[in-house]
Amino acid sequence: MPKDKFLGGLLPSGFSELSCLSRYQSVIYRKPSPHKPSSYLISKLRSYEALHKRCGPYTEPYNRTLNQLKPGRVIANNGCKYVVHLWMSHSGLGNRLLSLASSFLYAVLTKRVLLIDQGHNMNSLLCEPFPETTWVLPSDFPIKNQFNSFDKKSPNCYGNMLTNKTINTSMDKSLPSFMYLNLIYDYDEYDKHFFCDKDQGFVKKVPWLILRSDQYFIPSLFLIPSFEKQLTKLFPKTGAVFHHLGRYLFHPTNRVWGLVTRYYQAYLAKSDERIGIQIRDFGSTNLPFQSMKDHIIRYYLPHLAVNDTIFNRVKDSSDLTNPLTYMMDRILDCSLKENLLPKVVSNPQDSVFNPPKNPKTKAVLITSLNSWYYEEIRNTYWQNPTSTGELISVYQPSHEEFQQIGNPTHDIKALAEIYLLSLMDVLVTSPWSTFGYVAQGLGALKPWVLNNPHKEMNLDLPCHRARSMEPCFHFPPFYDCEAKTESDTGARIPYVGHCEDTSWGLKLFDDH
Amino acid sequence: MPKDKFLGGLLPSGFSELSCLSRYQSVIYRKPSPHKPSSYLISKLRSYEALHKRCGPYTEPYNRTLNQLKPGRVIANNGCKYVVHLWMSHSGLGNRLLSLASSFLYAVLTKRVLLIDQGHNMNSLLCEPFPETTWVLPSDFPIKNQFNSFDKKSPNCYGNMLTNKTINTSMDKSLPSFMYLNLIYDYDEYDKHFFCDKDQGFVKKVPWLILRSDQYFIPSLFLIPSFEKQLTKLFPKTGAVFHHLGRYLFHPTNRVWGLVTRYYQAYLAKSDERIGIQIRDFGSTNLPFQSMKDHIIRYYLPHLAVNDTIFNRVKDSSDLTNPLTYMMDRILDCSLKENLLPKVVSNPQDSVFNPPKNPKTKAVLITSLNSWYYEEIRNTYWQNPTSTGELISVYQPSHEEFQQIGNPTHDIKALAEIYLLSLMDVLVTSPWSTFGYVAQGLGALKPWVLNNPHKEMNLDLPCHRARSMEPCFHFPPFYDCEAKTESDTGARIPYVGHCEDTSWGLKLFDDH
Ligand SMILES: Nc1nc2c(ncn2[C@@H]2O[C@H](COP(=O)(O)OP(=O)(O)O)[C@@H](O)[C@H]2O)c(=O)[nH]1
Ligand SMILES: Nc1nc2c(ncn2[C@@H]2O[C@H](COP(=O)(O)OP(=O)(O)O)[C@@H](O)[C@H]2O)c(=O)[nH]1
Repeated sequence: MPKDKFLGGLLPSGFSELSCLSRYQSVIYRKPSPHKPSSYLISKLRSYEALHKRCGPYTEPYNRTLNQLKPGRVIANNGCKYVVHLWMSHSGLGNRLLSLASSFLYAVLTKRVLLIDQGHNMNSLLCEPFPETTWVLPSDFPIKNQFNSFDKKSPNCYGNMLTNKTINTSMDKSLPSFMYLNLIYDYDEYDKHFFCDKDQGFVKKVPWLILRSDQYFIPSLFLIPSFEKQLTKLFPKTGAVFHHLGRYLFHPTNRVWGLVTRYYQAYLAKSDERIGIQIRDFGSTNLPFQSMKDHIIRYYLPHLAVNDTIFNRVKDSSDLTNPLTYMMDRILDCSLKENLLPKVVSNPQDSVFNPPKNPKTKAVLITSLNSWYYEEIRNTYWQNPTSTGELISVYQPSHEEFQQIGNPTHDIKALAEIYLLSLMDVLVTSPWSTFGYVAQGLGALKPWVLNNPHKEMNLDLPCHRARSMEPCFHFPPFYDCEAKTESDTGARIPYVGHCEDTSWGLKLFDDH
Repeated sequence: MPKDKFLGGLLPSGFSELSCLSRYQSVIYRKPSPHKPSSYLISKLRSYEALHKRCGPYTEPYNRTLNQLKPGRVIANNGCKYVVHLWMSHSGLGNRLLSLASSFLYAVLTKRVLLIDQGHNMNSLLCEPFPETTWVLPSDFPIKNQFNSFDKKSPNCYGNMLTNKTINTSMDKSLPSFMYLNLIYDYDEYDKHFFCDKDQGFVKKVPWLILRSDQYFIPSLFLIPSFEKQLTKLFPKTGAVFHHLGRYLFHPTNRVWGLVTRYYQAYLAKSDERIGIQIRDFGSTNLPFQSMKDHIIRYYLPHLAVNDTIFNRVKDSSDLTNPLTYMMDRILDCSLKENLLPKVVSNPQDSVFNPPKNPKTKAVLITSLNSWYYEEIRNTYWQNPTSTGELISVYQPSHEEFQQIGNPTHDIKALAEIYLLSLMDVLVTSPWSTFGYVAQGLGALKPWVLNNPHKEMNLDLPCHRARSMEPCFHFPPFYDCEAKTESDTGARIPYVGHCEDTSWGLKLFDDH
């Protein structure tokens, strides 16, 4: 294999190739990344792997640390600390991957070992990323049966402990052996203190952190002064954080990889150009911000320089009038305007007679829960010639109709499609969708993001180009740890700004 | 264009290429036919074209002959006679094309001019086949408004006239100026006398024949002694009659041709091999013989050497238990057994690891009203590797859900799909389906025909190879004109035998 299968040192060597073909075969399907991992990142990853191997499940230090969870045990530091990552039970795959990458980076920063709860069949989706060990939390983990009950009201929840003053961050006395961190979209004010330096000083002493998240919380890690320096050293290009983390962590299992490679080879490989269109059909799922509109208006907007446009957009984003046709208008207008797809000639007179000798072929990969968009776009290019003579073929691997929780085949298809999208040359994505974020990050693609696809277009453009390929942290804390007051965290450092698709969300840019 | 765009002299020159691109472009997409048209056929076609040009609509002889239809006019023979082809209002496209080809051959044999009724948007589907004239019956045709009322009970119906003795075939006295020929599946006994020599002697004197048919009645024309010699001279290869007639007559309009060529180029052209699977979804249409079971059992079976198997098959063919899954079983079993498609490895261990370097690619074109089969087959080859390492891509241009009468776009898609099927290297077809017959004839393909796809397989094979590419005449007359009694017409001459999919139907073979 002449290509660099270790991705410039990002991936460790020493894995068996057959057990996880995607790990070293992805280079066959991808263009080489224009973003090289820093040598500091590489060395930190190697150290992390060594730590994980030393402290991972079934090791002697692991078993010892486990003892700390038994009631009445004193806490003896043996150099092994952990973060156990939990998902929300209804989280989609995009949200799960983004939050997992966030927990991993937090683990690297704080020299903890990342373990994941076995729920959600993550095992059948992703290979083990760390050599000679496992990231799967053993099923006999002592407090596993409490996981489901952990929420912001739990006595072990960090925010709750702060509110009730059961702990005091300035002293060591009451150090618990574990703590639950509630970093999901509806977290309480005190839970957000997790992103303050002072709190990190305390949190770092707790051996077991049980962290539940559905968010890409990395942008806010950059806002913690004690992390910032290390982070910018790890990622000199701040717009490529998830890109590196994703390629390092997420290797589809052989079953998923079969879906990716067979689809790519059978339908996409032979085209001159490949365009991915990710259509998040929020018709079958609640709009992500619909239920949170009040919260957004009350919590976030007062701190933003909100003009009427932004305000109205927030209100609009939950306004589903005739989503299918509006979405379709935007997709086609965006594709034409940005020259991603050619116009069709609906009344062909001459063009059919003079097709170019070797027409350029473009493959359009559509992913959506719904097959309507695919059928429409495919029929458009079937029933009409293009003005350029280009041949457009349109594909959609699946149409699952609705988001399915706990159906393993459903998740396998979802991951395969995210991965396939990441192999395209150009991406058009839906706003607010973590499904698209993962694809763009893995693919190192700055997508064309559809503007609110649920509203008829007025003066709005159909789409905008993302300024970085980073995911958006949808519900960041708006809190100034020094001033102890709410404030716009997107206005502090140049490369942590607001997302293009969510004016209050936080996103990493190469610079502001 | 280096290829023989006139198909060995079958097609006349002198057409404008742009007005009907398919006529001379089809050679780009097809393999050259292994069947050359006889020089006698070529000369007869040129004579026919001259006749049509001389007697066609809007010519002076046409206008004069038209006068004969006015009440009270005497019949003066001016050398122009006509057959006006009508369709049944509910006829599908396959039936329409087959009966049209039959009427055309009858016209050639009897030196009549073939005109078609404008109904059914045939204009938007097919180009004019004869140079410098038209085959479309002018809309001011005098008795056009009676067409709808013509049936086997009409006073002008040939069979009815025989029954009522309003004509006497042995004398000229009562010669009518026009006559209605009812050659549809439910024709009366006397209508079937059309296929007797003596009757043809009379029929040929009538200047205007209005012929309604949904059948491929050519096999029975071969059984008319006065036609047989000419027919075998026209078609020395008796298994290629429809092949030549279809390629001569049926040139899709530019709109249909756009669908054919764009689909072919965008999805099919680049594969190493192309397999067509035509799945006639009789679930949404009545099974063709369901309503006719009694008739078949009473009229046809007594004349056949019927064993229990055949008898039971007739009964079975209307037995729809769980058609979708049985059909699917047969399709897959047939494709595997006949080596059309490779096996999949459902528990891939080694095969995924050793894919061939340049795997062979096979495109499967599925046509069906239903998308279920497509989805199943596509998913099978997406979710599992093949035992041979071949890459299988699966396509279906449309899924119209049900047969739609009078919807022009529906017919356009149907014709495009028939044509696309005819461009495949191999065909698997559904029994009893004229849709498939047209494709196999145009493509010079002997298809693999699924055995009764509505029954669970017992000892039955999943499919059989058709012995000729000819269509089947589903409801032939069983009548011995000499003996004046019913008899098996499939037992008379070597190359007119019974169809593989319909034991009482008639079909042309190269020899018996
Ligand atoms: N296979 C497939 N599944 C999808 C698609 N869009 C949404 N889903 C399903 O719906 C879930 C959406 O959740 P998530 O991935 O978190 O993305 P988000 O809700 O758009 O942020 C996915 O994980 C899938 O299970 C799609 O295009 N293809
Ligand atoms: N586009 C399309 N239409 C079909 C298909 N199968 C059946 N149809 C429709 O149903 C009609 C069936 O009638 P016909 O062509 O006479 O075929 P038959 O009924 O199978 O003998 C077609 O003409 C189409 O209108 C298919 O695979 N594709």
